[in-house]
Parts: sequence; C-alpha cells; structure tokens
Amino acid sequence: MIKVFTTRKDFDHYRSTLTTQAIGLVPTMGNLHKGHISLIEKAAEENDVTIVTIFVNPKQFGPNEDFDKYPRTLDEDLARISAIALLINAKKDLVVFAPRSEEIIYPKGYSTMISVGPMTQKFEGSVRPTHFDGVTTVVYQLISITKAHTAYFGQKDVQQCLIIKKMIKDLEIPINIYIMPIVRNSEGLALSSRNQYLSDSERVEAMVLPHTLQKVEKLIRTKQDYKTFVVETLKADNKWDYLEVLDSSNFETTTDLTTELVIVAAYRAGATRLLDNILVPMNLGK
Amino acid sequence: MIKVFTTRKDFDHYRSTLTTQAIGLVPTMGNLHKGHISLIEKAAEENDVTIVTIFVNPKQFGPNEDFDKYPRTLDEDLARISAIALLINAKKDLVVFAPRSEEIIYPKGYSTMISVGPMTQKFEGSVRPTHFDGVTTVVYQLISITKAHTAYFGQKDVQQCLIIKKMIKDLEIPINIYIMPIVRNSEGLALSSRNQYLSDSERVEAMVLPHTLQKVEKLIRTKQDYKTFVVETLKADNKWDYLEVLDSSNFETTTDLTTELVIVAAYRAGATRLLDNILVPMNLGK
Repeated sequence: MIKVFTTRKDFDHYRSTLTTQAIGLVPTMGNLHKGHISLIEKAAEENDVTIVTIFVNPKQFGPNEDFDKYPRTLDEDLARISAIALLINAKKDLVVFAPRSEEIIYPKGYSTMISVGPMTQKFEGSVRPTHFDGVTTVVYQLISITKAHTAYFGQKDVQQCLIIKKMIKDLEIPINIYIMPIVRNSEGLALSSRNQYLSDSERVEAMVLPHTLQKVEKLIRTKQDYKTFVVETLKADNKWDYLEVLDSSNFETTTDLTTELVIVAAYRAGATRLLDNILVPMNLGK
Repeated sequence: MIKVFTTRKDFDHYRSTLTTQAIGLVPTMGNLHKGHISLIEKAAEENDVTIVTIFVNPKQFGPNEDFDKYPRTLDEDLARISAIALLINAKKDLVVFAPRSEEIIYPKGYSTMISVGPMTQKFEGSVRPTHFDGVTTVVYQLISITKAHTAYFGQKDVQQCLIIKKMIKDLEIPINIYIMPIVRNSEGLALSSRNQYLSDSERVEAMVLPHTLQKVEKLIRTKQDYKTFVVETLKADNKWDYLEVLDSSNFETTTDLTTELVIVAAYRAGATRLLDNILVPMNLGK
C-alpha cells in the first residue's frame, strides 16, 4: 500500500515521523514509464522510505513550450506505483508526494532561481536557455522539502543528471545522487517514448547511435585516436546534431582522459531526434 | 581571545565541536567600521558562538568595479574584533573565519549562482545587474559552511537585507535573519563611510534625507496623503535619485499599507550619493 500526500502540511507531518530511516527521492513529472519504474524500484530496494514526487514543474518549460498540454495521468501513475508496493518489503514505505497546486512548491511571490551556469546553455540547453535552471530550482525545493538522503535520476537525460550533480557539489547539499544506467532494448537502442515514432527502417537506421557511442568509448579505453573517428563520423552523415566527448563535471569539450568523461550524441532518424550517451569513469580512459 | 581560521579544514573541525550552542553569523568583507562592530556586539550578546566571516567576495563585483582595489585590512580587523572579545562573557566564543583564498568559498570549477529575481534589478541593482546575485550566492555558501542559527545584517543596506530574507524564505533555509537598525549621528544622519566626503554645508544639506523619510513615515502612520508629498518632494529638488514607498517582501511599489513597507531614498549632496531608509512594520500603516 502506498501513502499519498497532496498538501505540504500532510507531507511535512509524515516527514516529521521519520527519524533514522534511509530516505530515497525519485522526482518525476508523472506520466510514468519504464524508466521511472526502474528508478522507483531501485530506490525502494536501497531505502527504508522511497518518496516519489509527481509535480509538473512550470519553471522548466520555456515560453514556447506547452506546459498546459503536458500529460497529467495521476490515476495511472498511482496505480503503477501501487503495483511496485506489492513487490517490495512490506515494512518499507512507498510514498507519493503529488502537490495539488504550484503554490505548494513555489509559494506566492516565490522568485528565486538556482542556475549552474555555462553547462546549462549547451547541447539540450542551447535552444532551451532557462530549462535547466527550472530543473535545478525544483530539484533543490524537492530535496529541501523531503530531506532525502539519496535522489535517483536516469542517465538517459545525462546533461540534467550532471547539472544536478554540479548544483549538489557547489551548494554542498547533503544528499547522494544515484544515476541509473540507461535501459536498452535487446538490440541496444536506448528506451525512449520517442522510439514509438520510428518506422521499421528508421529503427534500423537509429542503431548507428548506440554503435557509434560504443565505438568512441572503445577507442578511448584502448587509447586510440577517437577524435579523427568523431570528425569523420560527423562529416559522413548530416543526421548527427552533435557527437562529442566531454568532461562530465562541466560539460566542456576535453582531451583530458583522466577525468570522468561523457560521450554525448543526438541523431535524427527521420523526423525523430534521438539522444544517447555513455559515461566513461575517471581514469579508465587513461 | 578570538579564534581565527583561514582554511576550510580547520574551520570545519572547529564547527564539528559545536553541538547545542546558539551560533550567530556576521558576514563581512572586512575593512570593519562602526556598523560592523555593532553587528558583532549584537551577535555576541545573543549567541554562545559568534562567527565573523571576512571574505572579499569576487562575485558581487561587476566587471567595471575594482575588486583588486577593495581595501583589505585583516590585521586591523582582527584587532578590532579582539577588542570586542575582551568585553563579552569569557565563556562565549568569538570566531573569525577569514578564508585565505577564493577557492575555499568557491572551489575550482564552481559555477552555481542563486538569484532572487526581479528585486535584484531595481534601485541599487539597476546599474549593478549581477551584484545582488553575488551577494545571495556568497551568503548561501557562508550559511552552508557555518550552519549558523542567526545571521546579522545592517539595515543601512536594506535592499541587500530584504533580498537575503527573500532567498532564505524561498529556499526555506533554516536560519533567522536579524536586521540591525541604522546607526545615526546626533542630528539623525545615517552613519556611512561616505559622510567623510561631505563639506560642512553639504552635511547640513544632507539632513533633508532623514527628515524627508521621517515625514513620509509619519504621513503613512497617520493615514495622510504621503503620495502627493513624495511627488512634490521629487519635483522640488533634482538631487533625489529616488524616494519611494515599497513592499518590503519584493521591493515593488505598493499602496497596500497592511504589508511591511520600506521607504527608500538616495540623495546626492554635492558629489556624494547618500542612502537612507525606514522600515514600517506590518499593519502599522493601516
């Protein structure tokens, strides 16, 4: 059985009853899919209390992005989370905090924004200049409200993950960040709600995305010339939006292979823009 | 005797020895004057432990403001704080945290900024667009490092005070903010390091600043027409930069006298620009 709170007062009262329990946080905007479910399962496995937040955050939508049309599927989301509750240790708490109004997260007059700076303006941030500031601000609020010990995010949105990690580090917020590996289909394509738009031939074509990332990773790990390969790949196919090897701490291009790296790519298969990435742990590229 | 720490490691170790003591924080950029001294004395009176930070914060200087030339007078500052230590209860701790490098507050790669939004862009922020973001960011860091229970600021810089209060409120940071009333000379002029530049005649002329603020306050408290008085005052003398009645929670012009108000003014006496303000508590204007 899950516990559901929709007001700050009820949630705060519940939170005040927790003392030494390990608390996990899975922040979501609802409309839960397999990726979210794997995060919730992981959090429930590792913590005594798992708090799933469902809040469509207005601050991460740009002026031309349709906040009002974002799918709100609370009943289905609660049913999915309830199904997880049946599978976990009955002594553990699975809690949903679904604020019933924006003012619960951003009280009247709220005006503060937290920005991690340059790394929010690149790649997925380049056409959404305020998006990641909205993400960091809501994640800050959710951590502050839940006082969780570990927060769970999916590696699929790696720029988001690394921006949040940067905020946590810079502001010395006492929480661990767990980045859940990308879930892939049997062929290796990263699962995404966008995959449903791919035709059969586009689905085949899309495999160039994970294959290319794997190739770059292998070249790095074996100390071969990955840079020429990247340049040649981009030159040969104009469907790449970007393919780059970055320092994971600041999302800047680097050739320092002793740091943690992230290989990021965006590729257009037909009309569908697909994202994928690989994290290369520190010193493995050395 | 005072305790002085210049590294994070030493400071953190000291902080870890504190358990239930009440901790006060007085953030400064050094070059201490009477205003700072009164804040430190107040904090030492109210707390078991008073932490004075001395850190010239690069983030609050604009590109055309001379960070390098800001006066650094650590020896004199420590002497002044030591003099206070002689006067307070010997069981109380008076601590100086004076980071010996910028990296102690902003480690390499630090990029996060906290901005309170529109109220940072008005009045003193209008020609210093990033100044108050720098202030909120360093105050956040200092609160985070010291984990103080109360922080002390001078009402002279009222916009700074109210921006910090806004950050504390929005981000739900568990600390009290104490705003120390403005210290005035026997005639009523707010003390300021800029007063030394006033000639005798300018010093007389400058009295229009506190007198006008007092008059506006009186009109508000007695429910008389303060607006016409403000308009006429500004029209009669072009030495006013601004004279306005604002909502203290957002620094916006208001006619709602049930909220906490702040009457702010900037006045040019000769070449010297003087600031002053009066806080009108909630419902006193009703």
